[in-house]
Amino acid sequence: MERTLNVQTAKKIGEEVLVMGYVNARRNMGKIAFVDLRDRSGLLQVVLVPAELDESSKQVLSDIRPEFVLAIKGLVNARGEKQRNPDLATGGVEVLAKEVKVLSAAETLPYDLNAELKMDTYLDNLPFNLRSEKTRAIFKIQSALIQGFRNYLIAKDFVEFQCPKIVAGATEGGANVFTLDYFGHSAYLAQSPQFYKQKMVGVYERVFTTGNVYRAEAHDTSRHLSEYTSLDFEMGFIRDHHDVMNMTYGVLKAMIDNVREKCAAEVKLLKATLPEFFDKYPVLKLKEAQKILETEFDQKGAMKEPDFEPHQERLIGEYAKKKWNSEFLFVTHYPTSKRPMYTMPDPADPEFTNSFDVLFRGAEIVTGGQRIHDYGQLVASMKKHGLNPDEFKFYLMAFKYGMAPEGGIGMGLERVTWQLLGLDNIKQATLFPRDRVRIDEPLGESGEKKIGKKGKQRD
Amino acid sequence: MERTLNVQTAKKIGEEVLVMGYVNARRNMGKIAFVDLRDRSGLLQVVLVPAELDESSKQVLSDIRPEFVLAIKGLVNARGEKQRNPDLATGGVEVLAKEVKVLSAAETLPYDLNAELKMDTYLDNLPFNLRSEKTRAIFKIQSALIQGFRNYLIAKDFVEFQCPKIVAGATEGGANVFTLDYFGHSAYLAQSPQFYKQKMVGVYERVFTTGNVYRAEAHDTSRHLSEYTSLDFEMGFIRDHHDVMNMTYGVLKAMIDNVREKCAAEVKLLKATLPEFFDKYPVLKLKEAQKILETEFDQKGAMKEPDFEPHQERLIGEYAKKKWNSEFLFVTHYPTSKRPMYTMPDPADPEFTNSFDVLFRGAEIVTGGQRIHDYGQLVASMKKHGLNPDEFKFYLMAFKYGMAPEGGIGMGLERVTWQLLGLDNIKQATLFPRDRVRIDEPLGESGEKKIGKKGKQRD
Repeated sequence: MERTLNVQTAKKIGEEVLVMGYVNARRNMGKIAFVDLRDRSGLLQVVLVPAELDESSKQVLSDIRPEFVLAIKGLVNARGEKQRNPDLATGGVEVLAKEVKVLSAAETLPYDLNAELKMDTYLDNLPFNLRSEKTRAIFKIQSALIQGFRNYLIAKDFVEFQCPKIVAGATEGGANVFTLDYFGHSAYLAQSPQFYKQKMVGVYERVFTTGNVYRAEAHDTSRHLSEYTSLDFEMGFIRDHHDVMNMTYGVLKAMIDNVREKCAAEVKLLKATLPEFFDKYPVLKLKEAQKILETEFDQKGAMKEPDFEPHQERLIGEYAKKKWNSEFLFVTHYPTSKRPMYTMPDPADPEFTNSFDVLFRGAEIVTGGQRIHDYGQLVASMKKHGLNPDEFKFYLMAFKYGMAPEGGIGMGLERVTWQLLGLDNIKQATLFPRDRVRIDEPLGESGEKKIGKKGKQRD
Repeated sequence: MERTLNVQTAKKIGEEVLVMGYVNARRNMGKIAFVDLRDRSGLLQVVLVPAELDESSKQVLSDIRPEFVLAIKGLVNARGEKQRNPDLATGGVEVLAKEVKVLSAAETLPYDLNAELKMDTYLDNLPFNLRSEKTRAIFKIQSALIQGFRNYLIAKDFVEFQCPKIVAGATEGGANVFTLDYFGHSAYLAQSPQFYKQKMVGVYERVFTTGNVYRAEAHDTSRHLSEYTSLDFEMGFIRDHHDVMNMTYGVLKAMIDNVREKCAAEVKLLKATLPEFFDKYPVLKLKEAQKILETEFDQKGAMKEPDFEPHQERLIGEYAKKKWNSEFLFVTHYPTSKRPMYTMPDPADPEFTNSFDVLFRGAEIVTGGQRIHDYGQLVASMKKHGLNPDEFKFYLMAFKYGMAPEGGIGMGLERVTWQLLGLDNIKQATLFPRDRVRIDEPLGESGEKKIGKKGKQRD
């Protein structure tokens, strides 16, 4: 007998079906047990009446606990108007079980699957906790976000590429890099696909890549991750950063639209509000935004800093919401001295750059801008930033042989998820978060983690 | 004036347009120059007649070399029947330039962009070489393959997830792992998403993930890469490995169909042949295949080995092509002792497993199978494989609290690309290949690679 998904039972009233799933909950009423069976399509009520069951099924009846995996043959019955559960897609039917087979037993749960947990308890038991209603909703939305990103860019002629993450020292920088033993040489984990996506502009004009990037963040806070998912695009033949900003706003809209279309139930469950998009989005130069912070929010000295403090991001985000009704704010013109060497200075005011950040609900989710595409200008900028162009030969090769005026962005998928869903901690927006003290399990006080005897253990 | 893509000029005969692109080639006929302008949509012939150009354009005319990046205003003219270039989408038109602006100059190329190169020369100059017709075709096809993989699985209710690549020692195994300094602890780069995708079956039933995986391969051959792209899915509520094989065959067909649909020109350019798919695919048990090798191909002793040699994969692939007209062959029932501890033994013959490889044109591109989903059986299997279950607590948690019968696969994207296009070396199917001796540039004889002064260098 072919399996019927829970949601399909609604169309099979009066028929015998085979359903399979996890026991989400069990309720007893005298000798009758009610099981909420969970499969990928949703929940279904199954009624277990001993008199209706065959002998072997009767024997397993008392064992059945939450997270048992069952295959159940039974009859689909319509439920009376009063008994309907309007919250379930299958609320109008239930299955009266005839045969119950245990596909997998489950130990007694340490706590209810949907319990509120402290962060450490949550992380310690992730393989179990990820099954909760809430986490399933969060990461289904995350999946819709990344797919919205890709689909929009594919429709705009962008070509996807696979980006390496093992890099040689000189090709990426920053203090917070992880070091790797690479056949006796030192190598590093990439902090971004920056150099590769720029090279790929010379190949396909418009490219994107999605994948893991790494930051050896010494802090263990609600904002820090060692490994996260970076969504990157890069495009050629732009006039300036405005073309990149327009594309960014379009891609953000497509991501949210995909969530709206694919994850209505999850959005509802999490009580999340999806942001609105308009014909225009607000843009402030950094100095303008800082002036507003100084004059309207009493943030003394804000204009002297090269960037916002986190609480200032929140304040200026609230300002944009109030003034333009927008939950997105584009901030441009960060100082040239504080941005990476490849950032294009504003020709009208070269102390500042054609770069931008996007704040969403008061937190940065995107960094991007126009890049220097002229070989000579790029070499000069490296020197100005104290870098030796000889160590960037491979990167520079892409510019030596002609490069279109170009720009792009990097977006943190977990950050977008975090802000979209109003989660407390970015680890709640990361399936298996890595931080300073944890890789799945806590790392312990110091020294080497014990390593088990190794066999061939993977596909 | 808005930019017109090259391919759109065919519909703008008689109009003035602005086109932008790279100089693919330049030919001179007396004072007239012909430029093949390359943009993301294709090639366009531009005619540069000094008398038609404004003053500043005349001055740059002599500079223009291959890979110069130009913005050209001009008039779209139809070409006579005899002058048409049937190989180009824009073969029926050309643009007579009025204004030429150099967006970026290019140094004289070291060799023709489409020259045949030795592997080292190719790799040393990748940022330039990737622009060739051939490499652009290869990686566009690769992009269609991965998108075909994702789209098929999304349509089959699979949920995408983001998989960590930094792992603790005990959670993944094998000899060829890269070691990482993780805040004073040793950590490792994941060889596959195996443990995580299995955990995720408990969450969403059907999951997939695409991303980089790592093998510290001591060999530097045409088959080895340190970093490659693994396409993985895992599905619950299977009967046995046949359900996984069916899904695998479906996903392979979808990948190839997507190439057929999106990359017809690239397939033609590379003279590639796309494989056919049928209602059924051939399946042999390993022992059956080895017996064929012994009896029909004189491969003495083949049956005593736990797997094929590479040349035997080719032989048995040819056999399948001849016998069943199939370029795919599924080989099942690898020995239990040689497969990872999570592999499900065949209940009818527990010395062999419900596992399989897929050979495509005589090379393995997929490894997969049914997994052990029962907690007790998994613990016992670990012990039998000489592993300590205490070191797999995090992984085992997913099974302790109920797990559907499940299985899945891992597929090497570069391997599929390699076999599909008949490339000599897998590095030709990898954008920026990492091997024992190279990360972009050669690593040198020994010791640490010099590291440049670091600044903030990334988005």
